Amino acid sequence: MTSALFDPLAGAADVDATIDDRAWLRALCEVETALARACREVGLIDLPTALEIGAAAEAFADTDPAELGRRSVAGGNPVIPLVESLRDRVRSRAGDAAADAVHLGATSQDVLDTAAMLVTVRALDVVVPALRGCAGHCAALARAHRDTPMIGRTLMQQAVPTTFGALAAVWGRGLDRATARLATVRGSLPVQLGGAGGTLAALYPRGTDVRGALADELDLRDPGAVWHTDRGVIAELAGTLGAAAVAVGKTAGDVILLAQTELGELRESAPGGSSSMPHKRNPIAAITARAAAAAAPGLVATLLAEGAHELQRAAGPWHAEWPALTGLLRSVGGSASRLQDCLGGLEVDAAAMLAALGDRPVELGHAGDLVDSYLGARR
Amino acid sequence: MTSALFDPLAGAADVDATIDDRAWLRALCEVETALARACREVGLIDLPTALEIGAAAEAFADTDPAELGRRSVAGGNPVIPLVESLRDRVRSRAGDAAADAVHLGATSQDVLDTAAMLVTVRALDVVVPALRGCAGHCAALARAHRDTPMIGRTLMQQAVPTTFGALAAVWGRGLDRATARLATVRGSLPVQLGGAGGTLAALYPRGTDVRGALADELDLRDPGAVWHTDRGVIAELAGTLGAAAVAVGKTAGDVILLAQTELGELRESAPGGSSSMPHKRNPIAAITARAAAAAAPGLVATLLAEGAHELQRAAGPWHAEWPALTGLLRSVGGSASRLQDCLGGLEVDAAAMLAALGDRPVELGHAGDLVDSYLGARR
Amino acid sequence: MTSALFDPLAGAADVDATIDDRAWLRALCEVETALARACREVGLIDLPTALEIGAAAEAFADTDPAELGRRSVAGGNPVIPLVESLRDRVRSRAGDAAADAVHLGATSQDVLDTAAMLVTVRALDVVVPALRGCAGHCAALARAHRDTPMIGRTLMQQAVPTTFGALAAVWGRGLDRATARLATVRGSLPVQLGGAGGTLAALYPRGTDVRGALADELDLRDPGAVWHTDRGVIAELAGTLGAAAVAVGKTAGDVILLAQTELGELRESAPGGSSSMPHKRNPIAAITARAAAAAAPGLVATLLAEGAHELQRAAGPWHAEWPALTGLLRSVGGSASRLQDCLGGLEVDAAAMLAALGDRPVELGHAGDLVDSYLGARR
Amino acid sequence: MTSALFDPLAGAADVDATIDDRAWLRALCEVETALARACREVGLIDLPTALEIGAAAEAFADTDPAELGRRSVAGGNPVIPLVESLRDRVRSRAGDAAADAVHLGATSQDVLDTAAMLVTVRALDVVVPALRGCAGHCAALARAHRDTPMIGRTLMQQAVPTTFGALAAVWGRGLDRATARLATVRGSLPVQLGGAGGTLAALYPRGTDVRGALADELDLRDPGAVWHTDRGVIAELAGTLGAAAVAVGKTAGDVILLAQTELGELRESAPGGSSSMPHKRNPIAAITARAAAAAAPGLVATLLAEGAHELQRAAGPWHAEWPALTGLLRSVGGSASRLQDCLGGLEVDAAAMLAALGDRPVELGHAGDLVDSYLGARR
Repeated sequence: MTSALFDPLAGAADVDATIDDRAWLRALCEVETALARACREVGLIDLPTALEIGAAAEAFADTDPAELGRRSVAGGNPVIPLVESLRDRVRSRAGDAAADAVHLGATSQDVLDTAAMLVTVRALDVVVPALRGCAGHCAALARAHRDTPMIGRTLMQQAVPTTFGALAAVWGRGLDRATARLATVRGSLPVQLGGAGGTLAALYPRGTDVRGALADELDLRDPGAVWHTDRGVIAELAGTLGAAAVAVGKTAGDVILLAQTELGELRESAPGGSSSMPHKRNPIAAITARAAAAAAPGLVATLLAEGAHELQRAAGPWHAEWPALTGLLRSVGGSASRLQDCLGGLEVDAAAMLAALGDRPVELGHAGDLVDSYLGARR
Repeated sequence: MTSALFDPLAGAADVDATIDDRAWLRALCEVETALARACREVGLIDLPTALEIGAAAEAFADTDPAELGRRSVAGGNPVIPLVESLRDRVRSRAGDAAADAVHLGATSQDVLDTAAMLVTVRALDVVVPALRGCAGHCAALARAHRDTPMIGRTLMQQAVPTTFGALAAVWGRGLDRATARLATVRGSLPVQLGGAGGTLAALYPRGTDVRGALADELDLRDPGAVWHTDRGVIAELAGTLGAAAVAVGKTAGDVILLAQTELGELRESAPGGSSSMPHKRNPIAAITARAAAAAAPGLVATLLAEGAHELQRAAGPWHAEWPALTGLLRSVGGSASRLQDCLGGLEVDAAAMLAALGDRPVELGHAGDLVDSYLGARR
Repeated sequence: MTSALFDPLAGAADVDATIDDRAWLRALCEVETALARACREVGLIDLPTALEIGAAAEAFADTDPAELGRRSVAGGNPVIPLVESLRDRVRSRAGDAAADAVHLGATSQDVLDTAAMLVTVRALDVVVPALRGCAGHCAALARAHRDTPMIGRTLMQQAVPTTFGALAAVWGRGLDRATARLATVRGSLPVQLGGAGGTLAALYPRGTDVRGALADELDLRDPGAVWHTDRGVIAELAGTLGAAAVAVGKTAGDVILLAQTELGELRESAPGGSSSMPHKRNPIAAITARAAAAAAPGLVATLLAEGAHELQRAAGPWHAEWPALTGLLRSVGGSASRLQDCLGGLEVDAAAMLAALGDRPVELGHAGDLVDSYLGARR
Repeated sequence: MTSALFDPLAGAADVDATIDDRAWLRALCEVETALARACREVGLIDLPTALEIGAAAEAFADTDPAELGRRSVAGGNPVIPLVESLRDRVRSRAGDAAADAVHLGATSQDVLDTAAMLVTVRALDVVVPALRGCAGHCAALARAHRDTPMIGRTLMQQAVPTTFGALAAVWGRGLDRATARLATVRGSLPVQLGGAGGTLAALYPRGTDVRGALADELDLRDPGAVWHTDRGVIAELAGTLGAAAVAVGKTAGDVILLAQTELGELRESAPGGSSSMPHKRNPIAAITARAAAAAAPGLVATLLAEGAHELQRAAGPWHAEWPALTGLLRSVGGSASRLQDCLGGLEVDAAAMLAALGDRPVELGHAGDLVDSYLGARR
């Protein structure tokens, strides 16, 4: 679900490393390791067995994801063959009892859902700083251009004066909010542990202890419940990522508009060229940020439309989440990264802005106040 | 954007009263009244003028929305002709200066955005109780059926035993969370006040005071900033409504599955008939709840896709929000209402559930614990 | 699903008359009438009975849709109470046997699906001419401005010279194609007749004859099969309407861009004002065309996501189609109507276009050829 | 945009080979080669130069897509560095004039759009046969089970008798239509050639000849016009793929429902297991077919929402198409492949079907007629 050809231009090179096949495989293996450790912690497995399982998982994390992919077809998810491989290895080194301790009390969905949360946390550890970087650039622009007059444009028509600082503050507030909400979501992502039917039957009465220990192992939250088929976690994550894409798309779109030749009020520091027009100076970081963000609404809709998981495990909607969530993280991470490139060296042509105002009287105390209020709220 | 023919069966009869043309018209008029009062409060308008404006708005709220609709075409939004009408009436009764005090310092978007928030608050005052009612029914079901064994079904296949209480707890947690989040969003909805270019220039330096007073008047939040083209508010609202639709759709879908003739584990108390098959007992409340919820993902996608508002006022994306937001409130409100009908008198056939278990050994301590934990968390 | 307040500005006033509650009610009644006539034609009903049913349906078409809406809740669709009312009236005037002839061999979905097709045909009879009108304006613009030089803009940056005629030709081709495809779809819309289980059992062996006669009565196509749960018809209709919205949105978006104050190359003949800025000349027809078109992608996604209808009748996905299809027709019809307003009197500022070219050498034979080829292909 | 880990279980292994990075790179190179040949054909380039360009492109097609991906960031699309590389190689072997003949008269979008069409054709050459295979299985099932009685289920409740053959006929008709429409679309996919501003200026007056020759070279259609920013081609392709996903999803969904333990009327020949429940027999091919199809509606919405391309080249919407189109082809190709697996060895339990009918009288002439009519229409 990543592309070495197209993802770099969409800003997704960094986030790809957290969401690609290898990252998913590693996360799956880490969950099996953490489950073994958690079971050991509550006394269901002994230490040598837990270590053996961890070693097996560690080794498997370096195998070829394509091989696991091929073996996943029969059962419809990669955890089934993964567990098989882990059990084989553990059996050969530590015997049947140890092999039985692999994946103890868990079901495929426990491992996949928890791995999805791990993947998301790591992706957000790229996405959130990128968004924060964008927001920081906006704050710097707002401060630097607190009193740089420009014409406000409503419905794409020149309207009344404002300042570029006031516009940068609008961008910045949107990005600040998106950053804060994603950071909150990141901290709320839970492990999944329910077992075959979502009742923790196989671990009874130690199931909730194991879940707590699993959460500790992976630095995820203990949800205090099973969420196998209550996909509120995914729906909220999707909505928050979608809102972040809006904040990025808004800012990128404005840069593109203000960089139009006829306006010329903004310019990227490293604009793009053309295969047929050497003179072109395209605001290509903003353009690709906008393009990357454009994937988000459809993916959010997919995750919501597939949100009603049937009974004790969904027959399709669950499997549909994996590419959609991965794609959504790529969209937001990529667009934030490209926007950071865009804003980092953004050239503001104050003279062009002033010229567009013509002879309109410019009193800007109000706009300056907006900037001050925005910068004040950030502190 | 409402339908007297189709909305009742989609559960939207109640929410319609808060989002239909008349509700929107009333909200627009209330914002103009509140703005006048807020301006009076900070000393920009005298009391007689504010009262005159309020009277004019009050009177206009009872006129035909279709007439305002026709007059909205020329300018592309209903506030332009609304202000014109209010000014005409105020002028004829209190003179030019009073007429000039109508809509003081505001722009169309201020009034429309704030009215949209009022409409949303009132819709949520129908939607949230309906969701809460659904959640309450789930809690009652979980309590009553804490120890009612049933077969868990994963990927739509019989899997391992659980209890109906454990399933109702999964439904209930999802609905509780959706309810809580929507209630939070309801309390966070802000007024909009920015004036022509979003800088409060025309009210300077009293703009922020007027905004605060406006928020007080309407019992909305003072956002401390302008959000003309930072649509995070809308994006988050959309995402939260979308997640609520997921919680409703999940529960409704499960009822439909468990009410299948062959399973017969659940039955609605007032199942629907058929125009050609008098014997049919369709779980029609669940079916229409699911159908109503199905509109949500696409509408969320629309609000996100139209979230990048250009510069100081969007040339299209803003106008696209009105029907999409209205439709989304109708979808969630309608589906929650129908689900409440469904769950209210849900008949649980414990014998059928037991029969499906066959001779599987049933130990249910684990499932009972889940129910206890869920009910405990609600207290 | 229509709004007297918001639909006029979204251009939907005309299309609303074909898709509103009254139009749906009328269509439902017409289908019952046509079914009776079709049954008479094949000899299953006598003429007086068919006439009595037709009279009852005709009378019912003028009742209040809200009343039928309220009565639809119990069964989940309006056909159940409609048939009840028709049977009551026919019984009271012509006896039980005649009453039994109402809705003969049909099920609710037959009537609703066929009514949906009737509603669609009538909506398309508004939408297609509006699109054709848009396309005609483009052809006129292309012809008039075959040789009007303008700067081409790629990635929103000035690029190389072209002509306004060449751009109008791009718009026109897109609109021509959308018009042609919708016209084709219009001609392909089928009746639905399958009876309770989709096998025409109750009319056997005359079912296919009745279906053919029904198609003739309503001037719809006889599909030669049942499509109760094969929603290809709806999916294709949705896709074609979505593509039409793209063609409209593209053109409207370009007008908005070229009407920007700084470009000033296009101007609507009746631009919109502002509630706070009397000097504004907003290209409001294009803006609202774009806004109306923006609803389409999400609605198409809804219709596709709800396209997998379960077994012999869907438990939710079917009911979800009614508002989505209605909304999609409103979106496309409204946007086409507003675009027609926009293009009808579009003012082209050839001097501004020339000025933007600066001292670039302009040879335009190639662009002129494009226009000629486009106009030639229309003939 | 492909995943070696997740795509096999989603059925996308085969289609991936036509849409992955390597396939895209190869297609881009083939377009440059074909352009050179086309230019030679009309006399703009000599044969040795065309051969040299072809050799360079052929060599480049085997380089690492990741390298081209990294070099694509600066300009925002891979054609810019591709052309640079081709020119470097051709220059070093045949001099400056030959280097100038690379990419003659074209712009990046010409090459990318045409490559997208090539990729699509090749993907459809996997997708269409898979769909045809599904449809063929349905026809065989309908024939074999023309007279196998089963209970029809409406709104998921037992309703009236039908036959399994009649249901398979509904599946088959949907799949036949989707297959036919995609095959038609496949034959209509056009080359793109417009040059920098979409007017073929640089090739004037031979541009249309080159376009025709290019179409011949690549076995694509000559559209007779430029479609740089008229994305009807993409919108229609998207809608048709979305409709195909509906046909697949419907069939897969029905298999899942009929394979429920309690119904047991269908069974996959190689059902899936579980990591925690060895007894499970999940209809995993149908489940993953449904999951793969679930991605389609959101991707269609993205392609439609990004369909309004600005002026002479879109600043974002164009770039957004690449992953969305690739993902959509993967979704439909994968789901069709999994459905083919599902239907290929589908076990029909006629006894279970009969048992569900109970003592209902079964006359099935009507259902048999439906099957005959369906099979007749296929001939």
